[in-house]
Amino acid sequence: MVNFILNRENEVYYECGYSCDNVIFLSLGSEKFFITDARYTIEAKQRAKAEVITTNNLLKTAKEIILKNRVKSVIIDPTKWDYSSYIELQKVTTLKNELNFSHKKRMIKSPEELEIIKKAVHLGAVAFERFVDDIDFVDEYELSYRFKERLTNRGRNSLSFEPIVAIGENSAKPHSTLTQKKLQKDDILLLDAGVKYERYCSDRTRSISISDTISVSKIQKFKDPFKQKIYDIVLKAQEEAIKNIKVGMKISKLDKIAREVIQKSGYGDYFVHSLGHGVGLDIHEWPYINSKNSDVIEEGMVFTIEPGIYLEGQFGIRIEDMVCINYDSRVEIMSEYI
Amino acid sequence: MVNFILNRENEVYYECGYSCDNVIFLSLGSEKFFITDARYTIEAKQRAKAEVITTNNLLKTAKEIILKNRVKSVIIDPTKWDYSSYIELQKVTTLKNELNFSHKKRMIKSPEELEIIKKAVHLGAVAFERFVDDIDFVDEYELSYRFKERLTNRGRNSLSFEPIVAIGENSAKPHSTLTQKKLQKDDILLLDAGVKYERYCSDRTRSISISDTISVSKIQKFKDPFKQKIYDIVLKAQEEAIKNIKVGMKISKLDKIAREVIQKSGYGDYFVHSLGHGVGLDIHEWPYINSKNSDVIEEGMVFTIEPGIYLEGQFGIRIEDMVCINYDSRVEIMSEYI
Repeated sequence: MVNFILNRENEVYYECGYSCDNVIFLSLGSEKFFITDARYTIEAKQRAKAEVITTNNLLKTAKEIILKNRVKSVIIDPTKWDYSSYIELQKVTTLKNELNFSHKKRMIKSPEELEIIKKAVHLGAVAFERFVDDIDFVDEYELSYRFKERLTNRGRNSLSFEPIVAIGENSAKPHSTLTQKKLQKDDILLLDAGVKYERYCSDRTRSISISDTISVSKIQKFKDPFKQKIYDIVLKAQEEAIKNIKVGMKISKLDKIAREVIQKSGYGDYFVHSLGHGVGLDIHEWPYINSKNSDVIEEGMVFTIEPGIYLEGQFGIRIEDMVCINYDSRVEIMSEYI
Repeated sequence: MVNFILNRENEVYYECGYSCDNVIFLSLGSEKFFITDARYTIEAKQRAKAEVITTNNLLKTAKEIILKNRVKSVIIDPTKWDYSSYIELQKVTTLKNELNFSHKKRMIKSPEELEIIKKAVHLGAVAFERFVDDIDFVDEYELSYRFKERLTNRGRNSLSFEPIVAIGENSAKPHSTLTQKKLQKDDILLLDAGVKYERYCSDRTRSISISDTISVSKIQKFKDPFKQKIYDIVLKAQEEAIKNIKVGMKISKLDKIAREVIQKSGYGDYFVHSLGHGVGLDIHEWPYINSKNSDVIEEGMVFTIEPGIYLEGQFGIRIEDMVCINYDSRVEIMSEYI
């Protein structure tokens, strides 16, 4: 059994089913220690599958536990710890650096995790559907506010991230921030958002046509034939990628399939990001779906497929859905609303 | 002139008037470098008072600039950098550790900063006033949602932090989280919230009586004489502390003045936190108003005065306002609404 030490909320939650914003988690052989301050003791004792230790000085207590247990070495992700804390820990044991230690562990989701994530995806998709009723000729701030009201059910659920709501030429920026730009007829409205269920995230993007009948489905009709052309290219890229996902194939090939659809249409230079990313407790996690990932698709993986074309000063189109590989090898788009 | 390196959003904003969530800021003598990725180049060039450098690899570029300028040493806060990045920087220069390097610089606010913070406090106080109309016999989630609607003006302003909205016995937890508990007549409702103006924070707490006429002023009438007694002790502790603030006095003395009021009333054990904290770009910054701070009060300081009494299982009272020391030594409660 390996020894390891964690301090990030999601990484700790994964190990013991509870977390908080001030914690050091120590796994020493079969023993697990959840070190936190008095604010969290009661909840931690009820929920964390670990021995809960309350202290005013987490680092000092972690060092004491390591010393007391004569621990020879501990795995640590050196990108997750500040220099001062790392140096302190190094005084009492040998730290074995392992980048992405937790992300690697969490890449393959269990059947239970798949079920939870499917619920998160469902909640998100339902919010998209309901938001259609709230779309009006108001600015991005107001649209975003109404969208978040649906996504969070007036603050009862958490967002996976701050949603992107971008009108017209603002949709051409892959990471647009809100402006006072008002929605108008025949605009493109790009919506990128997700919600959490039991701490697991969902993620989805629709680029919708503000015509007489508005819908967040993937079937969109644009008055402008050029917009329709670009939309159809992106949709085809997404569909081709999803259709070809198979257990055992290289992840980089998936990026290539979508990219080739867009390249052959002449817009390869405008697909400026990778095809997708894993989703779980973090909104971005392993596996990253890009041209350099030589890992292969496995059962239990969950990731987005989100090609896009961004035409600066004009508009952008991105279509994003989450897919998972079930334990019977079946590839599933994780929402009944597409 | 000192050389220093920063990577935190607010620390960088303080130096050059702009920031983003992926930046390394290098100050080398009179030269300043804002190193970021392509997403932020345009905005950074418009707003950052520094040379903007776009790169895919911030750390590599920072190392190159340090080498090119033959920089012998750089001040760094070792608690703000992850171990891996710190080790990389150490390969090209001597790192001089200085804890709280930026917080120290930012403790004394300029006259311009005081004006900005006064606006943030005003916006926050107005939101408290307006929220009175929205208070109804609904649960904490719904109250919090309505409160945030006022605080952010439907998402147009940023919160200083996630507000605390706590009813009855939940107000006895200094860091209560939302529940489905519903507000009832004669309850205490504790509200702790703030908003940002030009990135500077405000912070305020009121503990209000849900009687026939609800107000967020510091004058509160409780039907229950015991609640009134506790409220009056906390209010007196706050008033005594504020009244005694003077340039040149030890900060620890301020904590002592408030604590003695509460101790003499027999509730010293239930005032479980320090008296206050500095407020600026960060919601918690220097000076910390506690029994150990031997620094003295100076012009340009901004901090909260927030005594509290927490009676587990019953209720809690906290009253918090921000004060500043103007450049004519005048102590000012930063809001006309008290």
